[in-house]
Amino acid sequence: MTPAKWWLVCSECGKTRDAAGLPTLCDACQSPWLVRYAAPPPPAAKQALADRPWSMWRYHEWLPVHDGESPVTLGEGMTPLVPAPALARAHGVAEVWIKDESVNPTYSFKARGLAAAVTRAKAGGAVRLTVPTAGNAGVALSAYGRSAGLPTDVFAPKTTPLRILEQIQVYGARLELLDGHIGDCGKRARAFAEQEGGFDVSTLKEPYRIEGKKTLGLELAEQFGWDLPDAIIYPTGGGTGLIGMWKCFNELRSAGWVEGRSPRLFAVQSTGCAPVVKAFELQESRTTPWPNPETVASGLRVPAPLGGALSLRALRETGGGAVAVPDRQLIAAARQMAHTAAIDASPEGGATLAALERLRETEAIQADHRVVLFNTGAGWLYR
Amino acid sequence: MTPAKWWLVCSECGKTRDAAGLPTLCDACQSPWLVRYAAPPPPAAKQALADRPWSMWRYHEWLPVHDGESPVTLGEGMTPLVPAPALARAHGVAEVWIKDESVNPTYSFKARGLAAAVTRAKAGGAVRLTVPTAGNAGVALSAYGRSAGLPTDVFAPKTTPLRILEQIQVYGARLELLDGHIGDCGKRARAFAEQEGGFDVSTLKEPYRIEGKKTLGLELAEQFGWDLPDAIIYPTGGGTGLIGMWKCFNELRSAGWVEGRSPRLFAVQSTGCAPVVKAFELQESRTTPWPNPETVASGLRVPAPLGGALSLRALRETGGGAVAVPDRQLIAAARQMAHTAAIDASPEGGATLAALERLRETEAIQADHRVVLFNTGAGWLYR
Repeated sequence: MTPAKWWLVCSECGKTRDAAGLPTLCDACQSPWLVRYAAPPPPAAKQALADRPWSMWRYHEWLPVHDGESPVTLGEGMTPLVPAPALARAHGVAEVWIKDESVNPTYSFKARGLAAAVTRAKAGGAVRLTVPTAGNAGVALSAYGRSAGLPTDVFAPKTTPLRILEQIQVYGARLELLDGHIGDCGKRARAFAEQEGGFDVSTLKEPYRIEGKKTLGLELAEQFGWDLPDAIIYPTGGGTGLIGMWKCFNELRSAGWVEGRSPRLFAVQSTGCAPVVKAFELQESRTTPWPNPETVASGLRVPAPLGGALSLRALRETGGGAVAVPDRQLIAAARQMAHTAAIDASPEGGATLAALERLRETEAIQADHRVVLFNTGAGWLYR
Repeated sequence: MTPAKWWLVCSECGKTRDAAGLPTLCDACQSPWLVRYAAPPPPAAKQALADRPWSMWRYHEWLPVHDGESPVTLGEGMTPLVPAPALARAHGVAEVWIKDESVNPTYSFKARGLAAAVTRAKAGGAVRLTVPTAGNAGVALSAYGRSAGLPTDVFAPKTTPLRILEQIQVYGARLELLDGHIGDCGKRARAFAEQEGGFDVSTLKEPYRIEGKKTLGLELAEQFGWDLPDAIIYPTGGGTGLIGMWKCFNELRSAGWVEGRSPRLFAVQSTGCAPVVKAFELQESRTTPWPNPETVASGLRVPAPLGGALSLRALRETGGGAVAVPDRQLIAAARQMAHTAAIDASPEGGATLAALERLRETEAIQADHRVVLFNTGAGWLYR
């Protein structure tokens, strides 16, 4: 019998299990599982990347797919890394690059995590999928669920931008609008899933969205010629991308694919919903639910992220940090990204530029740094 | 002195000239120039593609850039080629693939042509850019003009979908709305350009948009392992992509990069504006201006394409054809693309699926064919 390519390890209590079926949370402590691979590919495997198809699945040795298995894919990943020399000059740093995740199927970074989660959910026997969403994850699940041929139910706050709600329905998902925030939608999604036999692909409630998001880190590494940047500013709602990149950089370093320290990871949130920033500043190891979360950056309206503890570890272990910016600043910065770098940034993407200004003031990011900002989705979805 | 990498040949009278300055149309006969390269790269150069940056500029030997010159780029190209087995079954053909050009900066195929045109216009000394547009070219010029640091004026029909008009303004272009169609906008753009010193990057009025669009063909070739598909269905407004792919496949065959016959190129238009289809059916060598052009597929509302004669040559030389489909069919087919292939197709993209049905009925496309449909832009821009 071939040994398994991967298994699961609880991020909190260290319990392990195999990957059979449809794993959700650790049955001992209800914390997220993380995927552990038996044999990371050797650095020589970099050479093989060249001839692979143009999607994140070209890194399949690092991802939860079996040899010869076809993933559910719409060509997600391989997004542009756009130099922004005018922003580098304006903020007095060596280099600024924008990783433009709006150039993805379904127009946001959510494509990566959902492609991975839907691939494994389908393989594990799911017959119906559901997700609570602050926005773009619902769009992505609608498309990937359709691509997998599985019916999909999406639960979103009534306050979600109208175009995101419209886009969720384009691919054919059933959409249910609810009062409250993503946490309230999560409760309804769980109840619905239990009642109707759906599988819930909420952030960190299954182990594979993180693996898809890990490709953000793999791509940065490859695009920079396996020489990682100094600092990454990432808009943090659920935190899957932050955790995914942290996991990715650790895996790449252990496997000898990259050398040197991990990039400093900086989380940016809105002052209207900043549980990770608050916990970081108070030196706590977990987040406290944010009362009355309010922000136009709907992807940041996550008052009690399940990945809060892991996000905080990612920030601290990499020597990074966390900043909150008011909505008016992140909106202005999104416009500035369009006008200086010709990128149609989402409010969340704009937040990273607003954060750069703050992090330069405090010298957390230094003049000789190579900095990456993440535009996580398309600006038009919020207009 | 190094010999020039490329020069220009008139597509009609065969006159040649060098590429200095800002070439527009042939000064002898007012027909479009085509780029001719001194030395196409040998097939062994395929190996070098692997390590190149992730954009259409990885094919730089085939493109109008000098060694070491930095193009104006937002990471355009390397778009997904998505298999659509359900559509292949439904239409009784061996394979259907959708080249999803909505996964581009500015959300359409126009990014390719405008990146090339703006790169050369800037290098040639242009200080201001202008374009008449049926829609997405205006969005692309707004972004690439901004990326090049050049002010941009866009002229569009009042009937252009509102979200396209909004998107043109996102990157900072000045937008002027006019009565009439793209031809009327072209007159105003020319007058404005003469008066204000702008350079007009209209379809085929300069020789480089075709070169950018050529990368559609290069990418298909590479994505299919240098084994070209049997048939390509392409929504044809101005025709730049059709002409670009025809030119590309001829260049690839002469250089020994691919073997065998060219893919059959099929143009699809709306029955509300079908000058290329009409001329093809009447076996004419040029198009006749279409009176009262009307279609929801704004990119197809081009009643008198400057590239009409070249488009007709491309269709005939490749053994392809041309079909017109009514708006209600192309709209329904766009919805079908979202619901079967999870691709948010534009009306123009939908038209290619409606055309497939027609081309199967007439057996112009046969059961053993590998067929590529082009989704040229994002559906949301039209809602």
